[in-house]
Amino acid sequence: MGARSNLDRLQIVLVSTRNPLNIGAAARAMSNFGCPNLRLVTPYDPSFREARSAIGASAILEKAEVHPTVASAIADCSLVVGTTAVGHRELQHPLHLLDSASKLLRQRLSKGKVAILFGSEKWGLSNDALSHCHWLLHIPTRHEHYSMNLGQAVAVCLYELSRGKNTSVPPAKPRFADMETVDRITAALLQALHTARYIAPRGEAKAEEKLRRMIRRLRLGAADAEVLLGMLHKILRKLGAKG
Amino acid sequence: MGARSNLDRLQIVLVSTRNPLNIGAAARAMSNFGCPNLRLVTPYDPSFREARSAIGASAILEKAEVHPTVASAIADCSLVVGTTAVGHRELQHPLHLLDSASKLLRQRLSKGKVAILFGSEKWGLSNDALSHCHWLLHIPTRHEHYSMNLGQAVAVCLYELSRGKNTSVPPAKPRFADMETVDRITAALLQALHTARYIAPRGEAKAEEKLRRMIRRLRLGAADAEVLLGMLHKILRKLGAKG
Repeated sequence: MGARSNLDRLQIVLVSTRNPLNIGAAARAMSNFGCPNLRLVTPYDPSFREARSAIGASAILEKAEVHPTVASAIADCSLVVGTTAVGHRELQHPLHLLDSASKLLRQRLSKGKVAILFGSEKWGLSNDALSHCHWLLHIPTRHEHYSMNLGQAVAVCLYELSRGKNTSVPPAKPRFADMETVDRITAALLQALHTARYIAPRGEAKAEEKLRRMIRRLRLGAADAEVLLGMLHKILRKLGAKG
Repeated sequence: MGARSNLDRLQIVLVSTRNPLNIGAAARAMSNFGCPNLRLVTPYDPSFREARSAIGASAILEKAEVHPTVASAIADCSLVVGTTAVGHRELQHPLHLLDSASKLLRQRLSKGKVAILFGSEKWGLSNDALSHCHWLLHIPTRHEHYSMNLGQAVAVCLYELSRGKNTSVPPAKPRFADMETVDRITAALLQALHTARYIAPRGEAKAEEKLRRMIRRLRLGAADAEVLLGMLHKILRKLGAKG
């Protein structure tokens, strides 16, 4: 998870957020993805107090900074990016979809502090807040319903920013059954099908070929193959077939 | 947004969700990303009523289906994927990080219906629910705080699924068996194993769960599944089991 630590330099700035649940949800997503720095610009006051006092309020809320202006919230950052739900609202700003935006953000995070601004639930970022932004970031959503929930938008941005960093070892894939076991399964099933008169005596060669192909298509794991073979032998014994 | 329309085939299945806000949040993310099909398995009842009656409850909540069991919620799907917060919980299931998981999911969505299961806020997916899954999906989060908010997890999954959507050319692979057929195979094999006394009477529930998992790991093609079912029925008749 090495490179992810650059999210230490990211400042999530919530501007004029009203709903305490949204502040809490943003903080939770930040904790999930390892982005510890939350700054709030003029949050609706009771709202922030409520979020902070909620059961399980995270360390992130504990140490969140409250700023009176956007300017003070971003003063120590070298790049400021605004989020917008509408892909075309502010023509005076360059706009990047989250995908390419996150590449730019990661580059800049390797060098210093970066802020991402999220506006209020109802109005998004004000023109004043936008005037502090270098460019805008947009999560591509459906045209008919483009406005995302604040906590979800924060989660999606942080997921995208931390993707590709993750060096967590892929799970060991199950070992596949060897062909000897697979052939024994085929033989046992064939015998059962004979006994049950599923296979016409004349069609035997053809049936065996088809069955062998089918069993191979199953891509049996080694453990499953042993279990299956045990089942078939038990069924064969009950069927009274000659083992 | 052409190829995104495959999200029409995706079924988001919330199992035993308790918090109405989470159901609403999941529905909102689904609307944002153009994924219309929500299925709820035994939601806490007042919770679902509250979510549905909320102001601005989406068309998605209006037409959400409520199912009594996971089996019925996924019966028409050919792939069932469970979500897990822990990267290593169920060793008997293959695990994919969201990144690679979504490539697999997109391929399968080009062919038919696919379900993604999300468990309860507190416990995740039960062993019973997991036994219906072909594999598990994990959103890489911080080890120290891995459990994501439900609505945020749904949003991140759908964001990832709808990204890069236009580039994948689906390979022409055989159609996979639907879960109804797979369940009939499981039931028939279970009956055969009973008759052959492979399963101890007391171990029935456990055996059924293990068997269901195993059959799912086989990734049966639709045609193979029909053949296998025919074989099992023939064997059952010979065994003299009550069909």
